[in-house]
Amino acid sequence: MPHRTVYFVSDGTGITAETFGNSILAQFPTKPRHVRRPFIDSAEKAYAVVREINETGEREGKRAIVFATLVDRDVLKIVRDHCLGRVLDMFGTFIEPLEEEFEVKSNHRVGRFSDVARSQEYHDRIEAINYSLAHDDGQSSKNLDIADVILVGVSRSGKTPTSLYLALQHGIKAANYPLIPEDFERGKLPASLAPYKRKCFGLTIDPERLCQIRNERRPGSKYADLMNCRYEVNEAEMMMKRDGIAWLSSTHKSIEEIATTILRDLRPDRLIY
Amino acid sequence: MPHRTVYFVSDGTGITAETFGNSILAQFPTKPRHVRRPFIDSAEKAYAVVREINETGEREGKRAIVFATLVDRDVLKIVRDHCLGRVLDMFGTFIEPLEEEFEVKSNHRVGRFSDVARSQEYHDRIEAINYSLAHDDGQSSKNLDIADVILVGVSRSGKTPTSLYLALQHGIKAANYPLIPEDFERGKLPASLAPYKRKCFGLTIDPERLCQIRNERRPGSKYADLMNCRYEVNEAEMMMKRDGIAWLSSTHKSIEEIATTILRDLRPDRLIY
Repeated sequence: MPHRTVYFVSDGTGITAETFGNSILAQFPTKPRHVRRPFIDSAEKAYAVVREINETGEREGKRAIVFATLVDRDVLKIVRDHCLGRVLDMFGTFIEPLEEEFEVKSNHRVGRFSDVARSQEYHDRIEAINYSLAHDDGQSSKNLDIADVILVGVSRSGKTPTSLYLALQHGIKAANYPLIPEDFERGKLPASLAPYKRKCFGLTIDPERLCQIRNERRPGSKYADLMNCRYEVNEAEMMMKRDGIAWLSSTHKSIEEIATTILRDLRPDRLIY
Repeated sequence: MPHRTVYFVSDGTGITAETFGNSILAQFPTKPRHVRRPFIDSAEKAYAVVREINETGEREGKRAIVFATLVDRDVLKIVRDHCLGRVLDMFGTFIEPLEEEFEVKSNHRVGRFSDVARSQEYHDRIEAINYSLAHDDGQSSKNLDIADVILVGVSRSGKTPTSLYLALQHGIKAANYPLIPEDFERGKLPASLAPYKRKCFGLTIDPERLCQIRNERRPGSKYADLMNCRYEVNEAEMMMKRDGIAWLSSTHKSIEEIATTILRDLRPDRLIY
């Protein structure tokens, strides 16, 4: 299969170009090859990278895509004037207008990331990760009062990845609690969750899909059996309905989509990250 | 403190606008209020959101920033023509040129995320999360042969958040292994790691910072004592040097920066995500 290459060209680490480029490329089914070229901070390096990009385009028969975060106007000009790839200039397009609006230089222009590792926000994020790990899969019912959200659902409905994502990306303390056959027999939510119903959010899943996922893990088990999956999913949904717990189906959703929906429902109008 | 508001306006869920906007806003120390307005898919809704944005700008004394992902040209025109905020049009600027280049419509335009939950890539990512969780903090030395990377370092040097980030964002199977006083006494890497040295990557940290972090967790303990932190960090660095393990300091780095550096060093020229 012929390749198509995307370059991330930066006079810094290229992390910004990459993060930005990925959020755009995620919109496409295409899976191009990624090449990062950091520290392009002189005319000489600019000409070298332009040569490389042009040669790649020629070899592949399609011009390369170039995400650029170049502060130095001279370097950018060389890339703009000589590069045969499609240059998408993040700086000129979005960062500069925002620098005007905020009346402050971006971290990139300052030449480094701000020292986020010392900020309160970062500290809270690390705490959220520790919290979510300690409260994965119902491991602990201590400190549920400080949870931002408690995910509930049958085993393998997507609770763990979603909790970790909420913690890592949004600094949300996300506990998660499996709903198991014993809960269904009692016909009640686990007792430790009862005081925190308003923080609970349910994940459900199509039984056929659940059966498939569980069979990868424990092939041929009762746990993975389709009839059992149907029973568990049905019981879990009835329980959530009875207890007024909002839920969504993870069957066709990515972790990002599940997390975004949960955030929206928990905190309308406001996304903290 | 006067607020400044950023709107994410979309005729879809707004996830794209938000993800994109966040990657840009991360470049600024400014912390504006975030408001998401999804499903703006008619002239009537467009006028309503424009009115809201304009009122907000007036109230705050500063015009709002508007990240827009609007496929419908008529809706976009209303926003462009009547909105007093600073509109950053993601679609026209970046998505359309890439649609031309790739000769394919973006997922956004198709009106939904592709059903990523069924893709092999997504499956691998979930497997990576499960793997990284099972191999957190030296919990298991089984299956280290299939690890993509094994992070080593003293307790609280940042291994766990980095491993989870690598798994969640990049689908990397990342085990992590603490280096503990017993290892230093023996003067050797844990035996289970010996065959996998080339996959090991070290995290180190400034002893003063480590002392501070550990004191939050176990105040006044020997574990948190500055002399002990100095000893452990020094021993760990000597051990990594002796065994030829590349390492970096997490002291002033965010999880994203640590992860990006590791990926670059493990897979030069190629970033998989």
